[in-house]
Amino acid sequence: LNAEIIGVGTELLLGQIANTNAQRLSAALATIGVDVYYHTAVGDNLNRMTEVIGRAATRSDVVIITGGLGPTPDDITREAISATFDVPLVRRADLAGELREFFERRGRRMPEANLRQTDLPRGAVAIPAEGTASGFHLEAGNTLVIALPGVPWEMVQMLQKVVLPLLRSRSGEVTISREVLVAGLGESHTHERIADLVAAQSNPTIAYLAGYGLVRVRMTAKASDEAAALALIAPVEAEIRARLDRHAVPGEGATLAQVLGNLLVARSATVAAAESLTGGLLGSALTEAEGAGDYFAGAAVTYATRAKGSVLGVDAGLLEDPGPVSEVVAGQMAEGVARLFGADLGLATTGVAGPAEQDARPVGTIFVAASWRGATEVRHIRGYGDRDSVRGIAVTSALDLGRLMVQADS
Amino acid sequence: LNAEIIGVGTELLLGQIANTNAQRLSAALATIGVDVYYHTAVGDNLNRMTEVIGRAATRSDVVIITGGLGPTPDDITREAISATFDVPLVRRADLAGELREFFERRGRRMPEANLRQTDLPRGAVAIPAEGTASGFHLEAGNTLVIALPGVPWEMVQMLQKVVLPLLRSRSGEVTISREVLVAGLGESHTHERIADLVAAQSNPTIAYLAGYGLVRVRMTAKASDEAAALALIAPVEAEIRARLDRHAVPGEGATLAQVLGNLLVARSATVAAAESLTGGLLGSALTEAEGAGDYFAGAAVTYATRAKGSVLGVDAGLLEDPGPVSEVVAGQMAEGVARLFGADLGLATTGVAGPAEQDARPVGTIFVAASWRGATEVRHIRGYGDRDSVRGIAVTSALDLGRLMVQADS
Repeated sequence: LNAEIIGVGTELLLGQIANTNAQRLSAALATIGVDVYYHTAVGDNLNRMTEVIGRAATRSDVVIITGGLGPTPDDITREAISATFDVPLVRRADLAGELREFFERRGRRMPEANLRQTDLPRGAVAIPAEGTASGFHLEAGNTLVIALPGVPWEMVQMLQKVVLPLLRSRSGEVTISREVLVAGLGESHTHERIADLVAAQSNPTIAYLAGYGLVRVRMTAKASDEAAALALIAPVEAEIRARLDRHAVPGEGATLAQVLGNLLVARSATVAAAESLTGGLLGSALTEAEGAGDYFAGAAVTYATRAKGSVLGVDAGLLEDPGPVSEVVAGQMAEGVARLFGADLGLATTGVAGPAEQDARPVGTIFVAASWRGATEVRHIRGYGDRDSVRGIAVTSALDLGRLMVQADS
Repeated sequence: LNAEIIGVGTELLLGQIANTNAQRLSAALATIGVDVYYHTAVGDNLNRMTEVIGRAATRSDVVIITGGLGPTPDDITREAISATFDVPLVRRADLAGELREFFERRGRRMPEANLRQTDLPRGAVAIPAEGTASGFHLEAGNTLVIALPGVPWEMVQMLQKVVLPLLRSRSGEVTISREVLVAGLGESHTHERIADLVAAQSNPTIAYLAGYGLVRVRMTAKASDEAAALALIAPVEAEIRARLDRHAVPGEGATLAQVLGNLLVARSATVAAAESLTGGLLGSALTEAEGAGDYFAGAAVTYATRAKGSVLGVDAGLLEDPGPVSEVVAGQMAEGVARLFGADLGLATTGVAGPAEQDARPVGTIFVAASWRGATEVRHIRGYGDRDSVRGIAVTSALDLGRLMVQADS
């Protein structure tokens, strides 16, 4: 089964938002074995929409359209589908009744304009509205056409409740992915170690994606059921982990912060972070997951040099020489923040995010430190890219150093 | 002049990344008056790439392709452009020499595979590499075809240095945008106040984009030169600011943090942040700009309740009753962090990001506080949406409260 995704809306073409709906749909379709060959974004324009939808229907089994289902005059996805497949729109009394109730429950009168949202192509099956917009799916020749609202939250609800079950029942096989997080190695060195596996891939497929200081190796297998797919992945994953050695982060966490969090929870331990160039990013990474309160004590962002002394207790002399961007200061920051918050693990970042060098240290200089129950380690890393990139690499490197120290203490 | 954007890469179709390159390009093209009608994403497949590129060339003045310029065998954008327009690839000795030097400067030998990156369609003009991949542009019939690397940082550099000047020189007119940041009002209330201006827009156009607790009203004018475009915007901006009153953030900063930073620098003042639910996001927002060292002292992320007392000096009794998510604790956090870092302005956030309620406070409860040279104000805000949304609203609200207090003290 193959699919393509069409995003409708001028805000996409003006660059006001990224097409995250296409990303979410694609990621979800990949998990059930549906291949996506094209994404398209097009504005609220009837001619261009019918052209794009019509072409998609000639080359794909499934066409998913997001956006353009609102009540305003520029929301014309219903009309475009009607025109493309020459199917009239029919006002659906059942949907109109539900919509009126939706407004009444909120103590508001329904604007007449909203009734447009209850016009569906004849023969379409409605997907229950999560807000005011109903979605729908329609068999058009050999193509299944699915229309979903552009509001991400509404789109995701319909995807989970209706679209995935519908497509799963058609595809007859399942696709399962597992990821190996690779820290401290870089994409080209990761590739060197597993290039032959990548070249020989079939089922599972092997792909990687590089982030700041982190690479994800994703293995995706198709099979008749989940157990069979996992059985295909297991030997490949074991081989990849063996070759990447300590750079392959153990466990199943989606992020390095989650992996570290799991390690800490298993040891009833807590973490605190001392940040300089990362300015709070390390703390926010550690608090992204909802259970963060179980292991995260807090963070001190000591951006000003003076604060490294007054808040974290770094020796004043060391802040003069060798200066705040140094191995010894990173180490004392990690120790100081563990003390300040009474945490088992202290992490620290200091460095030069750029664009200008600082204290004769070049842009990209990063020191990260971890202090775990009295023992402290520091790493010197060369970051690259712009300010965001250097800061991201510092966050990843600090999390990875903490992960290695906690993991070693089993 | 109209353009379309083609993103190449299987990682887009698998949903591993969002097509942020298309977003950045579109936003940049909008500022110089180039209309974008289509975005397409396609995998690393020669047939599908030539199909997509060929169609784009028939309907658009400018086709910008991102991705597929790397050294590995699946990077085939060069080959696809060659095939689409029937122009042979030529190995460019000048680029090969530069690439060899690039590796030598880093003390590494250049892998032979990288030489593929110096193959350009005959007649193409090279765009200097920012990493190992050169970009290029090529006149193909009436269409200008531009190929850029997929690495966002490299893409943006080439966009700024080469692509925008090139397109600006062709379009013959300039487009200038100015934005009014609107804080504490919300999109629908913003719209209510200026709906008639939006309905009557022509030149400048008026658009808005909602962020977490913040709306940007963007006015875009086209004219023969910059001064003429600014003269078209000026009266519209003045009218919009008058109607939005104190919700229209004065000045030109691109972010609320920048606006606050400018106000602080003008007063030789500094800011420190105390964060609970935002976990470091407020600090990282304040340090996004490169000159942040001039006004940002630091932040204390007191995620654990205990740390609010031990680090920030919040009264232990208040942490029991009314509890950490309360007006009085927010105020003491702001005062405590200003004291801790010796800053003129202390900002604080506390609240419930979700997904579960906390201490009988519902998800979305937010208190922000600002303490400016001894005077403290607290606001209670109802956040909405998911965890990211609630955290984002808390950051914006804290920055806005600080901005209002500093601004009032002139």
